[in-house]
Amino acid sequence: MNQRLVYGIHPVRQLLLSRAGTVDRVYLQSDLGEERRARLADVLSGAIRVLRVSAEELEKLTGTTKHQGVAALTTETGPLSEGAARDLLARIERPLVLALDGVQDPRNFGACLRTADAAGVNLVVVARHRNVDVTPVVSKVAAGAAESQAIVQVSNLVRFLETLKSQGLWLVGTDDAAETSLYDVDLTTGIAMVLGAEGEGLRRLTSERCDHRVRLPMHGTVSSLNVAVATGICLYECLRQRSAPARLPGTHPVR
Amino acid sequence: MNQRLVYGIHPVRQLLLSRAGTVDRVYLQSDLGEERRARLADVLSGAIRVLRVSAEELEKLTGTTKHQGVAALTTETGPLSEGAARDLLARIERPLVLALDGVQDPRNFGACLRTADAAGVNLVVVARHRNVDVTPVVSKVAAGAAESQAIVQVSNLVRFLETLKSQGLWLVGTDDAAETSLYDVDLTTGIAMVLGAEGEGLRRLTSERCDHRVRLPMHGTVSSLNVAVATGICLYECLRQRSAPARLPGTHPVR
Repeated sequence: MNQRLVYGIHPVRQLLLSRAGTVDRVYLQSDLGEERRARLADVLSGAIRVLRVSAEELEKLTGTTKHQGVAALTTETGPLSEGAARDLLARIERPLVLALDGVQDPRNFGACLRTADAAGVNLVVVARHRNVDVTPVVSKVAAGAAESQAIVQVSNLVRFLETLKSQGLWLVGTDDAAETSLYDVDLTTGIAMVLGAEGEGLRRLTSERCDHRVRLPMHGTVSSLNVAVATGICLYECLRQRSAPARLPGTHPVR
Repeated sequence: MNQRLVYGIHPVRQLLLSRAGTVDRVYLQSDLGEERRARLADVLSGAIRVLRVSAEELEKLTGTTKHQGVAALTTETGPLSEGAARDLLARIERPLVLALDGVQDPRNFGACLRTADAAGVNLVVVARHRNVDVTPVVSKVAAGAAESQAIVQVSNLVRFLETLKSQGLWLVGTDDAAETSLYDVDLTTGIAMVLGAEGEGLRRLTSERCDHRVRLPMHGTVSSLNVAVATGICLYECLRQRSAPARLPGTHPVR
């Protein structure tokens, strides 16, 4: 049976929220600080076998100093089911989701996964038949994120986006022709950022489902940004707004 | 003699500011709006031959509807000299510069150029012997920006960064270990964003020259972002701050 070690507060938390049943044991640093302990408290309850270890033991197990005091041994592999993805989001207060509407280039998809992981995205959604699969090239470019990032491959993207709405998320799609700037939308609620394929952008049906269509400022000659770069700009604007001391007033329309 | 057509307000403005002597003629839309006309007024003086044309003629000439009412025919090719780069910045009020400390992968460099162009960067600075050259792969990935973006290849990056300082720019370098977040620095002045090579980051000597060392929040498993994605996040944060109605209080130390 294939087992792998997931480490870091956010990835372990995500794993326990989505697939606790696949976790054989959790290694927890004995002298873990208050704040990190608090971020794990609700997911380390009851059924999970927790072993107390030293920082040095964790470093040996994970092969890095950046384990943040926790690691989990899991048999989990591959994408989530649609049901598990919905359950995951239902357990998170203000989820941040990245939905890709047909990214075909494996390097672009890998870079999107790497960026999503860095931004702490809770779930990446891709259309099963329109998006490149997680190939070895994707894995390599993703720099580990193809394994750590929660991904769901859905058969009908528009329908899945509707279920995200019903779970209370706001859908924000990028569109070169939009009148609203990314920076004028409240991104502090549960958000699914929806980005289109290289060149084509969002399909009409996908775009119509979005609560907001937003553009990124373009000041030069090129007509668009690389999809992974656009993903980074959008996701990090979500992070910025969420951590900003003074938040924008709510800008969501009634729907 | 090779001639090429540059179009769009910002690229034409940049061309006339840096190398007006290479411009054979400018095509200007007869019914160009007030605001766009104002943005060209100071660079279209005297010595430049201006032909008034219709929007349709411009569309035919440039092969796009996104010409923004202006195009320039130039014999200019290749990077700027260091002197021309300094002169260009001296003529711009709050320059935005991207300095790359040794990007080796041609796809990454191309994506950085595309991103810089989109953000309206005034100048891209690279170290001649540490950065990949503008190869055909770079050009292809840059989607036109390798030709439109003002670039200078310098023999000594640290020394050139010092001259940028003496021209009043603030140097902001990215560093995973920095204590300050990108979002806590005032980016509304003249700024050179300094980004390091893949994996290694900034060299010590380069990093020490920076007025601010900033980190991007990292919430997942991956240890860094792709350099083009990091470039996009940093440059677009500059744009956001510059267009934000309420600016951050100045955070630059006395130097």
